[in-house]
Amino acid sequence: MEFTLWQAQSRDAVHDVLSRALSERRPVQAGRGDAILHEAMAYGVLGGGKRVRALLAIAAGEAVDARPASTAVVGAALECIHAFSLVHDDMPCMDDDALRRGQPTVHVTFGQAQALLVGDALQTLGFELLTSLPEPAERVVTLVRLLAIATGVQGMAGGQAVDVDAVGKAMGQDQLESMHALKTGALIKASVLMGAGCGPASAATLKALEGFSEALGLAFQVADDVLDVAADAQTLGKTPGKDAAADKPNFVSLLGLAGAQGYARDLHEQALAALRPLGPKAGRLEQVTRALLARTH
Amino acid sequence: MEFTLWQAQSRDAVHDVLSRALSERRPVQAGRGDAILHEAMAYGVLGGGKRVRALLAIAAGEAVDARPASTAVVGAALECIHAFSLVHDDMPCMDDDALRRGQPTVHVTFGQAQALLVGDALQTLGFELLTSLPEPAERVVTLVRLLAIATGVQGMAGGQAVDVDAVGKAMGQDQLESMHALKTGALIKASVLMGAGCGPASAATLKALEGFSEALGLAFQVADDVLDVAADAQTLGKTPGKDAAADKPNFVSLLGLAGAQGYARDLHEQALAALRPLGPKAGRLEQVTRALLARTH
Repeated sequence: MEFTLWQAQSRDAVHDVLSRALSERRPVQAGRGDAILHEAMAYGVLGGGKRVRALLAIAAGEAVDARPASTAVVGAALECIHAFSLVHDDMPCMDDDALRRGQPTVHVTFGQAQALLVGDALQTLGFELLTSLPEPAERVVTLVRLLAIATGVQGMAGGQAVDVDAVGKAMGQDQLESMHALKTGALIKASVLMGAGCGPASAATLKALEGFSEALGLAFQVADDVLDVAADAQTLGKTPGKDAAADKPNFVSLLGLAGAQGYARDLHEQALAALRPLGPKAGRLEQVTRALLARTH
Repeated sequence: MEFTLWQAQSRDAVHDVLSRALSERRPVQAGRGDAILHEAMAYGVLGGGKRVRALLAIAAGEAVDARPASTAVVGAALECIHAFSLVHDDMPCMDDDALRRGQPTVHVTFGQAQALLVGDALQTLGFELLTSLPEPAERVVTLVRLLAIATGVQGMAGGQAVDVDAVGKAMGQDQLESMHALKTGALIKASVLMGAGCGPASAATLKALEGFSEALGLAFQVADDVLDVAADAQTLGKTPGKDAAADKPNFVSLLGLAGAQGYARDLHEQALAALRPLGPKAGRLEQVTRALLARTH
């Protein structure tokens, strides 16, 4: 199947899982408040986005002959976690962003209290979705564990806490990289390993995928910093130059624009090299990686 | 074992699980931010409280001969979810409360951004803890599912969304009860069913426990409304009269103080009656219920 078609079909499959999950969890009570929460959750998680994490999970699943019905659910769970983090990250007490994917952010549209609850409930939905997987229970428990570790204090939340504290402070490249390994890297890595966790993956395969996902996760963040500086609001769909304006350490301020672009390219090459031992099975992962690379240069 | 000793030992067991879980999840990076998050999580979840949900889980576990090592972990997971909801609920965009258990709330002590992340990461920790249970994987998946349903849009988060929307609005008793069935009842019910889920429970036992937990959950909320009006700040450890001040519907404004007290008593009797078919096995659950009843009258 041609890559752009595969990508569209994969996104549709994930959208279907999410949309069905939300319609199966209709508000159970007469009050208006949970109907608003329900609508706001749909706004936060169904409103598009590149679905990078879901695509990685589905592509990694193909590398180990996992069932597509399973990797679509895993992808949907990952997108719930990602969406929850964006909704909370956009709130006034965090990044205070009014625009996301070209639309008003959840708290702008539904108010801060609902946005807080949207993030909370999307995180929960991510874990709940995994319990509906048509996989052996041992595998489901491993997937819940991988997702939790990537999301919590030793993953995404920990990285965001470092980020919150880092505003206005000087940060060396090592520190910046270890912050991003938590903040965005952990969930990217979990996406790949959870996709592979839906099939029978050898230790060697998992090790190769781990190396791949670490390089890709960092490349993705460097590329994001480049985009943040280089793009205008219309292309980006969010307020550009926010990191610089907020005096947050980033790869462009550290390495310069050309330096950061070159570094992203090197990391992408590293990621592709890490896939080589897997041979043709890693074809989709390679395509996803190349598509991400094309975002910036 | 005497009840107060059992209660103290159960709280200690849960505290140990939580405290070990946090020390095993030390900050992994040099930045100061995730060390702050780590400290703030401990502040939010280890700072005491009655541990009602954990006690219910442990007592329900005893009714089905579950392993104490398992129900302590389930209790700890429930207390993570409860603590996360309190941390988020206290934030300025929600109830804006400065005092909790007689101490400054998490956002007052650590700032709003960290408080947001504390709640997020405590939710995650709740799910992660379940994956470490020394139980068959099928059982773990069921427990994750019960916890997720109780926490999400069809449980606690849904109830809070109704609550947010209800400020300043008239609400009948039916609506108020169905709001609380979500907001606090769902997690109380999950506490009982998850404790019982650590052992071999018959359908009849689960049905009895469901009836018990529904009556208890509502009784607990009615009692809370009574306390909110009747107690002073020192006894309560939190700002009293908040619901009335915020113009939130509650059982005291609906039924009067004496009416609400009587209703709480009736519900407690209902809860105890629901336990009777279980015989002496339900002894601890009965004791926990009586101890909760003693809070207000």
